[in-house]
Amino acid sequence: MENFIAYNPVTLHFGKNILTTLGPTLKEYGNRVLLVYGKGSVKKSGLYDRIMDGLKLQGFEVSEYGGIKSNPVIEDVDAAAAIGREHQSDVILAVGGGSVIDSSKIISVTIPVENSGWDFFTGKINAAKAIPVVAVLTLAATGTEMNPFAVVSNHALGQKSAYGSPLTFPKHSFLDPGLTLTVPRDYTAYGVADLIAHCFEAWFGIGETTLTDRFVISIVKEAMEYGPKLLADLQNYEYREKIMFAATMALNGMTMYGRSTGDWGVHSAGHCLSLLYDVPHGASLTIVYPAWMRHFKTQAGHRIVQLGSGLFDETLTADETIDRIEAFFKSLGCPIRLSDLKIPGDPGQPLFESMVHNKVNGGNLKMKEEDYRALIGLYL
Amino acid sequence: MENFIAYNPVTLHFGKNILTTLGPTLKEYGNRVLLVYGKGSVKKSGLYDRIMDGLKLQGFEVSEYGGIKSNPVIEDVDAAAAIGREHQSDVILAVGGGSVIDSSKIISVTIPVENSGWDFFTGKINAAKAIPVVAVLTLAATGTEMNPFAVVSNHALGQKSAYGSPLTFPKHSFLDPGLTLTVPRDYTAYGVADLIAHCFEAWFGIGETTLTDRFVISIVKEAMEYGPKLLADLQNYEYREKIMFAATMALNGMTMYGRSTGDWGVHSAGHCLSLLYDVPHGASLTIVYPAWMRHFKTQAGHRIVQLGSGLFDETLTADETIDRIEAFFKSLGCPIRLSDLKIPGDPGQPLFESMVHNKVNGGNLKMKEEDYRALIGLYL
Repeated sequence: MENFIAYNPVTLHFGKNILTTLGPTLKEYGNRVLLVYGKGSVKKSGLYDRIMDGLKLQGFEVSEYGGIKSNPVIEDVDAAAAIGREHQSDVILAVGGGSVIDSSKIISVTIPVENSGWDFFTGKINAAKAIPVVAVLTLAATGTEMNPFAVVSNHALGQKSAYGSPLTFPKHSFLDPGLTLTVPRDYTAYGVADLIAHCFEAWFGIGETTLTDRFVISIVKEAMEYGPKLLADLQNYEYREKIMFAATMALNGMTMYGRSTGDWGVHSAGHCLSLLYDVPHGASLTIVYPAWMRHFKTQAGHRIVQLGSGLFDETLTADETIDRIEAFFKSLGCPIRLSDLKIPGDPGQPLFESMVHNKVNGGNLKMKEEDYRALIGLYL
Repeated sequence: MENFIAYNPVTLHFGKNILTTLGPTLKEYGNRVLLVYGKGSVKKSGLYDRIMDGLKLQGFEVSEYGGIKSNPVIEDVDAAAAIGREHQSDVILAVGGGSVIDSSKIISVTIPVENSGWDFFTGKINAAKAIPVVAVLTLAATGTEMNPFAVVSNHALGQKSAYGSPLTFPKHSFLDPGLTLTVPRDYTAYGVADLIAHCFEAWFGIGETTLTDRFVISIVKEAMEYGPKLLADLQNYEYREKIMFAATMALNGMTMYGRSTGDWGVHSAGHCLSLLYDVPHGASLTIVYPAWMRHFKTQAGHRIVQLGSGLFDETLTADETIDRIEAFFKSLGCPIRLSDLKIPGDPGQPLFESMVHNKVNGGNLKMKEEDYRALIGLYL
């Protein structure tokens, strides 16, 4: 094992009708709420009205910022922060999926400063103060509800970057699997893929740790067992519950105990697909992961074989393991080649340039320009 | 799954030579340290001198309370709290195993009040303020380093009780597996048994949750794989590391996600053995658990069978599972019958009376006086 520090102060409220305690939780932080949400699904589902009515009944002063995009952009963060600053918001209520909660984390540290939120991503400034964030999750996927990380795009600069600090954990996250019942099939599948990819990023990091490996295998097996069942029965509360819980566990820190770093090279490469072609995050990962494992199957062969025997309870070669994982992603209905997305023109060169520009790399398995070309060749 | 709230604010520092950051961590809370420790092993091992020298070099004002017993008693808690009150301690540094850290949690909430610490256990008062606790763990067993719970005995009343509040989490816990290299064989074995028993208490609680069950099986399998290896090679750092990490995971809350309660009937019954005959905690559990499973094998049969197939990767009956678990405890060198402890006289009646007096019960599987008699009959 590598030395590690475990710290996760999030209070997670999980279960059926768990929002009943949302009001009293917000009240702990004050009366002025900045409500942040996305592009319509919370209005369509009625959740927006339910929450807004509840807040008003309980006497909160509510300001709001809607319209966070599913690949969130820094302009929205800065605009929402301006509203929070103007209204002297005591607490941010983030209602949505990963993009809304990620954005809210950056809004929370941007409100107290004069800078653009992008300055956190470039390292120009670090978080010194944060408005507390309370999250209501509506999509099981990114794990943001129980970690301090945020990923935001800056299209003016052609960059998609991650930031996190001990101040950017949500204070509370409310997870009612019932709120995910309306998520459409494709985004449900991307969520399953995303949570599995998070486990893989830990798995391919640095640090041998048998128990943590067992945890990782547990989470991926759960997702591989119940993901397909859920996709065949999208209204099944029990399956929604299992996938929502697994997604949170996949990126709340426990897969990293005893490791000094994850890899994250696949996420880094996947971000370029999202930046250029607005590919949903989970879909970018099902395209890049099989290619990445094939590209690194010599260097990471031992870990790929271990992963295969852990997941499939039989001894498999690295190639067999990769084939099975790819077949699983395909069975979810996720794209596994860029060609599955029918992007017009030849995306190879723009992707290569974006990878160079974004300095795509892994924490464990390092990538250079020749790796970019090889990787793109494997998933085009 | 049952609805649940997950909250664990402990900062865990895990690894080789991790104590290098102990001083700066304590400094966050102030300069006056109350050092709490046990009955000699930290002095024998040289850890006491190392820590005391370090604290003095870094300019801390240190007061101390040594001599916490391995089944900790309320008199020590109250005496230590008086010292902390007198010296206006800013922070408690607990150096030792479960008994020292459990005691320190109660000391931390007793210092700010005039009461005996026992008043927390009876419910007369609840914690309203706490002196921060920083723990240095020297024994892998109880999991206290990453949870808010404390178990203390009151011999005047013939009671052994548990208390916990959101204020009684340690702020920081430092776990260097190297500090456990000197733990003798018997206490090493009891630690392995204790961590397994903690997993079982969660397993037999209320709430069906497939992923959490996978986590529980992961932890027990790790302990069953590396516990015996460690006992055959007590100086092996890697095995110490695996058991220390597993013990922390076994009772940091993750085995309870999706359950509304654990069972804890076995712990409750085991406490009576410790109270009457000073049986080490882990040894009391290896005696009671097999008996408890045999007694409840009809009501809990389904869970026992699930546990067996999870742990042993084959289909076993409830009886076969119990036999295998008992055989495992025996292979560790732990007692599995009270007769293994060679207690003089007939302990049956005093034990029965102690169980009545302490209202021994489980959170899931309820016990009455006839269950006490049956249980005692199975483990005498």
